[in-house]
Amino acid sequence: MAPPSAVSYDIEAVTDTEAIVLPNPLTVNGVASRRAKAGKLVAGTAAYTSSDLFKSSTAGKPKAKRWDHYFSIETKSRQPSSLKGAAKYLKTPGLISLGGGLPLAENFPIEEISVKVPTPPHFKEKEAIKTGTTLSAGKYDVSEGKSVYDLSIALNYCLGTGAAQMLRWVTEHTEIVCNPPYADWQCTLTVGSTSALDHAFRMLCERGDYILAEEYTFSSAVETGLPLGVKFIGLKMDDQGLIPEAMDALLSNWDVVARGARKPFVLYTVPSGQNPTGATQGVARRRAIYKVAQKHDVYILEDEPYYFLQMQPYTGPNAPGIPPPSSNEEFLRSLVPTFLSMDIDGRVMRLDSFSKVIAPGTRVGWITASEQIIERFVRANEVSVQNPSGISQMVLFKMLDEHWGHGGYLQWLINLRMEYTSRRDILLAACEKYLPRELVSWNPPAAGMFLWLKVDWRKHPAAKTKSILEIEEEVFLAAVEQGVLVSRGSWFTADRENFVHTELFFRATFAAASADKMSEATARFGIALRDIFGH
Amino acid sequence: MAPPSAVSYDIEAVTDTEAIVLPNPLTVNGVASRRAKAGKLVAGTAAYTSSDLFKSSTAGKPKAKRWDHYFSIETKSRQPSSLKGAAKYLKTPGLISLGGGLPLAENFPIEEISVKVPTPPHFKEKEAIKTGTTLSAGKYDVSEGKSVYDLSIALNYCLGTGAAQMLRWVTEHTEIVCNPPYADWQCTLTVGSTSALDHAFRMLCERGDYILAEEYTFSSAVETGLPLGVKFIGLKMDDQGLIPEAMDALLSNWDVVARGARKPFVLYTVPSGQNPTGATQGVARRRAIYKVAQKHDVYILEDEPYYFLQMQPYTGPNAPGIPPPSSNEEFLRSLVPTFLSMDIDGRVMRLDSFSKVIAPGTRVGWITASEQIIERFVRANEVSVQNPSGISQMVLFKMLDEHWGHGGYLQWLINLRMEYTSRRDILLAACEKYLPRELVSWNPPAAGMFLWLKVDWRKHPAAKTKSILEIEEEVFLAAVEQGVLVSRGSWFTADRENFVHTELFFRATFAAASADKMSEATARFGIALRDIFGH
Repeated sequence: MAPPSAVSYDIEAVTDTEAIVLPNPLTVNGVASRRAKAGKLVAGTAAYTSSDLFKSSTAGKPKAKRWDHYFSIETKSRQPSSLKGAAKYLKTPGLISLGGGLPLAENFPIEEISVKVPTPPHFKEKEAIKTGTTLSAGKYDVSEGKSVYDLSIALNYCLGTGAAQMLRWVTEHTEIVCNPPYADWQCTLTVGSTSALDHAFRMLCERGDYILAEEYTFSSAVETGLPLGVKFIGLKMDDQGLIPEAMDALLSNWDVVARGARKPFVLYTVPSGQNPTGATQGVARRRAIYKVAQKHDVYILEDEPYYFLQMQPYTGPNAPGIPPPSSNEEFLRSLVPTFLSMDIDGRVMRLDSFSKVIAPGTRVGWITASEQIIERFVRANEVSVQNPSGISQMVLFKMLDEHWGHGGYLQWLINLRMEYTSRRDILLAACEKYLPRELVSWNPPAAGMFLWLKVDWRKHPAAKTKSILEIEEEVFLAAVEQGVLVSRGSWFTADRENFVHTELFFRATFAAASADKMSEATARFGIALRDIFGH
Repeated sequence: MAPPSAVSYDIEAVTDTEAIVLPNPLTVNGVASRRAKAGKLVAGTAAYTSSDLFKSSTAGKPKAKRWDHYFSIETKSRQPSSLKGAAKYLKTPGLISLGGGLPLAENFPIEEISVKVPTPPHFKEKEAIKTGTTLSAGKYDVSEGKSVYDLSIALNYCLGTGAAQMLRWVTEHTEIVCNPPYADWQCTLTVGSTSALDHAFRMLCERGDYILAEEYTFSSAVETGLPLGVKFIGLKMDDQGLIPEAMDALLSNWDVVARGARKPFVLYTVPSGQNPTGATQGVARRRAIYKVAQKHDVYILEDEPYYFLQMQPYTGPNAPGIPPPSSNEEFLRSLVPTFLSMDIDGRVMRLDSFSKVIAPGTRVGWITASEQIIERFVRANEVSVQNPSGISQMVLFKMLDEHWGHGGYLQWLINLRMEYTSRRDILLAACEKYLPRELVSWNPPAAGMFLWLKVDWRKHPAAKTKSILEIEEEVFLAAVEQGVLVSRGSWFTADRENFVHTELFFRATFAAASADKMSEATARFGIALRDIFGH
């Protein structure tokens, strides 16, 4: 499946599920003038903050629907913290606080943190080491007029939204990329999308509930839900991921008594470069899914770690590659529109993560959803993870906000796009060279890190007597024997109890191994398959 | 209440709740030779690790009790991750993995992180700025032989235990300080104690359960439990915190039918510098509480953020202070023994945090408990927070392990002890000077950040017609009017529904304001009180 070519919002007919096209959506260049108008960001230790402080005017946009009817008992019973209620008095001029137990910055034994990062456009590691820029944060940069964020703030406590300085950046980025079409959207930082998913499931589900998902899905999502008593129900997929008609049919025919559960109202989906199948939903597909969600009043969890790993169209083994987008604008236009960008109802929680595009070890991500959802989410943060590491936030702020800016970040993402395109193409070339085509088939992924290999189990010599899972295990172990580890497709089934395997899949990643090793590994997998299938 | 003077384990009679005194407990100096014996630490990206790799021999120690009978449905139903099951194959020599989607380090746009920290013993901020040491971590320090931990590891994914390099440090530190008397204790890193508490409540409790706690307690702990349907039941306190006889009486007389809940089996306690009362349990008190816990088979959550904020004995307003401990050994001996150090049954989860002793913004802490508990906790981490920020872990590792070592860290803690002693003494002197002693009384806290002020509401002109809560509000607002914020005692009641207020308290912290401001704030509070009470 080739990735959709540059799609712009206005070439399709406007329906009620369309994004509203605003006269002046925020652009990279628009950020500077908006910040200038807003005045200097003043946000000290544990300062209250909100995306509302950083958004464009939302005049003319509708307000999000309310979701009270889906909230779990746990979520409904969250009260604001009693101590935080005292925060309003802190604004009293001249007040001295003996209230909160915030340690003094002078007792933090960390005087300065520096980070060396690439200077755009010299992103390649070797260049970055040579020409990179070292960015430093001191304890008192704010009072010394050097920055709006310093270690006295970052090393202290912080509210459940994350620091204002990083929240501003993610809010602006989200508006540039998604421009949500309803008024009261907000962002809040997370300690990563797995934690955000855990929060989301607890916010929306009770024991016994079903969540909709692709029939093969991110196994950690399933494993996050299962101990909560939440089961996944898999929806049929094609090369663009989940099939909206399958979702509609399932929901239209849901039998509460037979299923022993209320009708599902949460969809968990990975729209771009889906894990494990690598499938990417095109824009028409997304609109169709959104429409089904509206019809059945389904809330969408849009998990998008791979959104910016959308790659160049695949041109084949020997064809020349396509040059990178020539500008940030062209790059943004080349991306499939997000669910958030068409979310007229405020029925989407979008989960963004720096894990795949900066580094997993930052443990920083963010979500975007309606104000009501964000408020409940922040309350949950306050009594659990609190906020991401201030040290991580500082490193990201220095790089993304003060050094690269939004434009530099998009340039970095273009660089990463070309990097992943090249790695994907190496794996695809190796597959074409080494794998028995009469046994194995695949779609070139348009996004993500994964190639989904379908093996024709019907050609196995013992296909009539062995189960698909037995053949899967045989292939897996033979591959290990040959010296290559691939993931078994059955590890990713959404429905862990009742799924009937009719096809045999393996997942291979092109993210992790060097070019040489990917080719060698693929050759080994080919040998394992030929051995077993006698081809 | 004066802090207990240097207590050593062996001066008291040995009972079955005593710590076993091992022939060779780990000392600061013993770490080097043990590490040398163990050989170089080899732990790459997302490497499996366990405290067992870093502990002294536990020969002769008993194994912990099992806690299956207390596990919640959620905890019982956690399965190991299916993807992580594949990790065992990664040990196959020569294997190439196309399995896990771990991004390549060359695509992390962070080439180096440096941190400037104090060089022991020059801990004061001004000295640290002048004489501090800059520690740097590069991406490939491990392969270049410069370190056992580098950014290629720290910036990538990590297992739910945290990185081996930091786990080793906290395991050694815990053994030096607590030397748990049972065999199968382990540590795991957390993203902070609030998150760890959230995990612990979910691990042990079902909706409708009661948790035991001090009658005034950390309000966030209560607010973590309430949405889970877990209520707190407050135990009477004196100047050493919770009274074991009150705990025994409550549990002995628990009426399941009248209470509508099973007998409580979890105790949440802050043994040192308790929040909000500042009370510190002495060693005899801790032993008595542990004994009651054994009698009723209660599991103890030992939340100890202030453990190393135990201060010098209070000598009075004009008496000279007591010089700091003259050695690390003397310092360690001066600390009240922990519950963990007397935990022969493995019935304690100790929660440690860097928030009060390094910086809250690190979002790194750890817990220590039996292997069974740690295993369930790590499973929960895997599908929620995953692990603390790798950047935070790296900064802590560079400072604590490579630069300061265990000895330097203890020196830092002695420095902090003297700092907090001095701050406490300033607040106490101001209270003695400015507060009406006929209305206000307090115990000098032996640990922590808080002074608990008891106000004699009976002397209020309208004591017969106003409730305690009304008087509390009146004082609080009058104090704000005068320009000082203190916390209202009622914010900290464990039992939010049925607590009968018989006394009036306010909490003041000596952690946050400068010396001058603390005195000024106290004077203002005195004025507010005199105004209202007419004294």
